Amino acid sequence: MSDTEPPVQPPYYVVVFTSQRTTVDAAEYAAMAEEMMALAAQQPGFLSVDSIADGDGRGITCSYWRTLADIEAWKANARHLVAQRSGRKTWYERYRFVIAKDERVDEFRRLQD
Amino acid sequence: MSDTEPPVQPPYYVVVFTSQRTTVDAAEYAAMAEEMMALAAQQPGFLSVDSIADGDGRGITCSYWRTLADIEAWKANARHLVAQRSGRKTWYERYRFVIAKDERVDEFRRLQD
Repeated sequence: MSDTEPPVQPPYYVVVFTSQRTTVDAAEYAAMAEEMMALAAQQPGFLSVDSIADGDGRGITCSYWRTLADIEAWKANARHLVAQRSGRKTWYERYRFVIAKDERVDEFRRLQD
Repeated sequence: MSDTEPPVQPPYYVVVFTSQRTTVDAAEYAAMAEEMMALAAQQPGFLSVDSIADGDGRGITCSYWRTLADIEAWKANARHLVAQRSGRKTWYERYRFVIAKDERVDEFRRLQD
């Protein structure tokens, strides 16, 4: 959620990816994560993404998409499939992958003092 | 997403709260955030919560609830209302608050080697 990006407007779907990393392959993982963030942002129907990782290997990434078909297309992207396989094989101790459909959205920005 | 908590099963609603902190009131904020996490977990319909903050004041909290009415009841909780007011008045530079309804969920846990 950067200062400049527009608010997310319905209809949208949110993909919540909550993960716990293993302790291996830190450099490879970081490079692939960066590539996937950039690649996702180029996909049709992509709206916005927020991603945070802490120092203990926990991460939450929430991406917003216009339709379920857009999410499916991204999931089937060839380069993304490579990343998903490495994720299950090597990088993640566990993860939760949730897709949910908009019900409500509210955004707040502090007025400049 | 701890090692011990059960998977989230539909039906559920996810509340995605993405925030950027101001730089004020760090101790008060931390105490209230801890209190709210504990209080939320006691509410009817609460299922699960994942929360991460980085070192730059960004945070993502995803909480899972059984019904919209459960979310509304928590939003109207007297102590939570106090926290919400302080959030808008003092603690947050901006936030995004999203409620979305389950479409799909997938959880992965690495088998023990």
